[in-house]
Amino acid sequence: MALTANDPSRKSWLNVPKDSDFPIQNIPFGVFITKEDVVTIGTRIGDYAIDLGALQQLNYFEGIDLTDDMFMQDTLNDFISDGKKTWRLVRNRIAELFDTNNPKLRDNEDHKSIVIFNVQDIEMQLPVLIGDYTDFYSSREHATNVGMMFRDPANALLPNWLHLPVGYHGRSSTIIPSGIPVHRPLGQTLPNGETQPVFGPSKLVDFELEMAFITTDANIMGEPVSVEDAEEHIFGLVLFNDWSARDIQKWEYVPLGPFLAKNFASSISPWIVTLDALEPFRVEGPSQEEPKPLDYLQQKGAHSFDINLQVAIEPENAEETIISNSNFKYMYWSMAQQLAHHTINGCRVNSGDLMGSGTISGPTPDSYGSMLELTWGGKNPIQMKDGSERKFINDGDTVIMRGYCQNDTVRIGFGEVCSKLLPPFEKK
Amino acid sequence: MALTANDPSRKSWLNVPKDSDFPIQNIPFGVFITKEDVVTIGTRIGDYAIDLGALQQLNYFEGIDLTDDMFMQDTLNDFISDGKKTWRLVRNRIAELFDTNNPKLRDNEDHKSIVIFNVQDIEMQLPVLIGDYTDFYSSREHATNVGMMFRDPANALLPNWLHLPVGYHGRSSTIIPSGIPVHRPLGQTLPNGETQPVFGPSKLVDFELEMAFITTDANIMGEPVSVEDAEEHIFGLVLFNDWSARDIQKWEYVPLGPFLAKNFASSISPWIVTLDALEPFRVEGPSQEEPKPLDYLQQKGAHSFDINLQVAIEPENAEETIISNSNFKYMYWSMAQQLAHHTINGCRVNSGDLMGSGTISGPTPDSYGSMLELTWGGKNPIQMKDGSERKFINDGDTVIMRGYCQNDTVRIGFGEVCSKLLPPFEKK
Repeated sequence: MALTANDPSRKSWLNVPKDSDFPIQNIPFGVFITKEDVVTIGTRIGDYAIDLGALQQLNYFEGIDLTDDMFMQDTLNDFISDGKKTWRLVRNRIAELFDTNNPKLRDNEDHKSIVIFNVQDIEMQLPVLIGDYTDFYSSREHATNVGMMFRDPANALLPNWLHLPVGYHGRSSTIIPSGIPVHRPLGQTLPNGETQPVFGPSKLVDFELEMAFITTDANIMGEPVSVEDAEEHIFGLVLFNDWSARDIQKWEYVPLGPFLAKNFASSISPWIVTLDALEPFRVEGPSQEEPKPLDYLQQKGAHSFDINLQVAIEPENAEETIISNSNFKYMYWSMAQQLAHHTINGCRVNSGDLMGSGTISGPTPDSYGSMLELTWGGKNPIQMKDGSERKFINDGDTVIMRGYCQNDTVRIGFGEVCSKLLPPFEKK
Repeated sequence: MALTANDPSRKSWLNVPKDSDFPIQNIPFGVFITKEDVVTIGTRIGDYAIDLGALQQLNYFEGIDLTDDMFMQDTLNDFISDGKKTWRLVRNRIAELFDTNNPKLRDNEDHKSIVIFNVQDIEMQLPVLIGDYTDFYSSREHATNVGMMFRDPANALLPNWLHLPVGYHGRSSTIIPSGIPVHRPLGQTLPNGETQPVFGPSKLVDFELEMAFITTDANIMGEPVSVEDAEEHIFGLVLFNDWSARDIQKWEYVPLGPFLAKNFASSISPWIVTLDALEPFRVEGPSQEEPKPLDYLQQKGAHSFDINLQVAIEPENAEETIISNSNFKYMYWSMAQQLAHHTINGCRVNSGDLMGSGTISGPTPDSYGSMLELTWGGKNPIQMKDGSERKFINDGDTVIMRGYCQNDTVRIGFGEVCSKLLPPFEKK
């Protein structure tokens, strides 16, 4: 019997360093540009990027029903539109091709020289054209922490929170891949105790530790997606840093929600790890007995994933300090519940839409997913290895997020999303 | 001296009915599909749609620097990307071609038979691929009315409202052209006096009378657009019905703003009327002295437009009743201020982005822009011509919005946006 793409016993003829996020069991999807300015869809094994466009031209996907230029594109949207069956066939084929026992490509030096790149020689791009971006707010710990600080400690969770996955729309145009720096935003803020706002650079720039899932065409307009079917329409996940300006947010966000405090930038890790690759790491989410959700949101079984998450700050010219360790499994609402809720009113979801989890905070203070929570609004600064302190993010700091799943036999990771905060934009 | 496209003395050799929204001074842009399934960019004069793709193929745009297939596309995004200079050259060329004194096309029956369609023989499409959609909340009267009903009558306007154009992100995937019906959305609501939400069809489906402007590529990420330059990046306007479910909205909207209450559908009029065509109707907006906005939002001169707006409800198999007469000039914040605010933090704005005004309510109860306000939350039902009453929108009702500018010499209109409310979606 043929091995599946997830089989932990499979090894690749490509070298995979110990503790790599990208063993042959991962096979994520992304878009990269080569030194020769060729843009292609690719995957990654170890520290090698593999040009799937070239593989397709060389006929290695023979027998799989793909359009001729499926992988010679600058986004994954069309491939994602093809649906889960095609994703599986392609992922299985890649696993077979790079299996240590398969000589077909392994022993073809000409083809290998065309198809395989060192990851240091390529540049990752945004993997999808994001039509619409939604951000949820699905960590109970995060919502409670923010409610305690911004509103009423005695009633930190608002009445709707345990009944529905609260979410709001974000801005697609400023979602950027890892590595692109971000300017400190300008905007209006209301100084404490004042009644007139002032203008200037945000003083409270923060990250938000999130993950985001990417959808395929899920429905026609008007048609809800059931919670049972929802995972069929989820292609995969990325790490997501939802940059936030807390002082701008506080002044602008009533009554219609955050706007300029969020839409100056959000950074994603460039390799989309498929839901299939995460299968071995399924876990149950938090109990939803008190209260039970309404029928259309009820789910049985394991619909969360055990994904270790980490945030580090690297000051300019200094060593990084790890400031948070969290886990995706803390999310109260599952991705399937988020997608079912999003479409219950008939809202159309398309290939390439991106849905953020909201900040993922764990139960302990060292697992909080934002500086706002880690320093409790700046009251408890974080000590950095270089001797400095942080209440929020300084100019020159690089924020790095990492994520991976690990069991006894395999590690499936996301690599990282990193982005440097620059001083405010100046017109040249 | 050549006449400009706006010259009120120009007449067309195409017949333009009295009180048409589309005299030769308008020249809006849209996308239509013919009975032969040809999709093309077009304009409209009187009751004729003009195929700009065919005009280009027949070389009528000679001398204007356009890519070869500029108008043979299914969206206007590329044309809009070309910028205001190109828009003006094309609009002027169309005006000259259809000028009653120009025989070039007028006397070429072969070409006319290729280029000109009766509007009844074509179907209008969405004119742009909308990358991001933002909705503002810029009518003081609307924000005050809603604040009185939903929050505190004594402090109806929130503290930030007079200092910045409050806005939030919406969903692009459910923006549809006039004529497409909309299903009554399902969702969670909290019955009055209860603590547990219930599930079912919204009971309070409403329209919102808005207009929306469509942008060109305005900036690079990080770079603010100044309020002085902002109008350069506005292509034109459409009528906009931002369908809303008030009971879903009330339960879900804290703390991150409206979500499912809005994203089930928004309808737009299909012809984009250019900012240039609206020039004769510039007026000053409301005074902004108390308080003066911060510097980056300060503007002198006439930056609003005198556009008459009307809403009618047409029950199934019955005559329509006009239920509101409002005007775009009531908006407190101008489009230029909205765009300058939107980008002050470096948020990128692209060609084809759409920005809604928010509900446009005037100062008198007959000029309110939603059923919520017109019936004051259902307390004062509206009498319909067919003898029925309306608190909100009934299944089978068609909501029709119209808009036009009028002076002594010319009328420039938007046509209409109409959309019928259907019962909840049922899976076939």
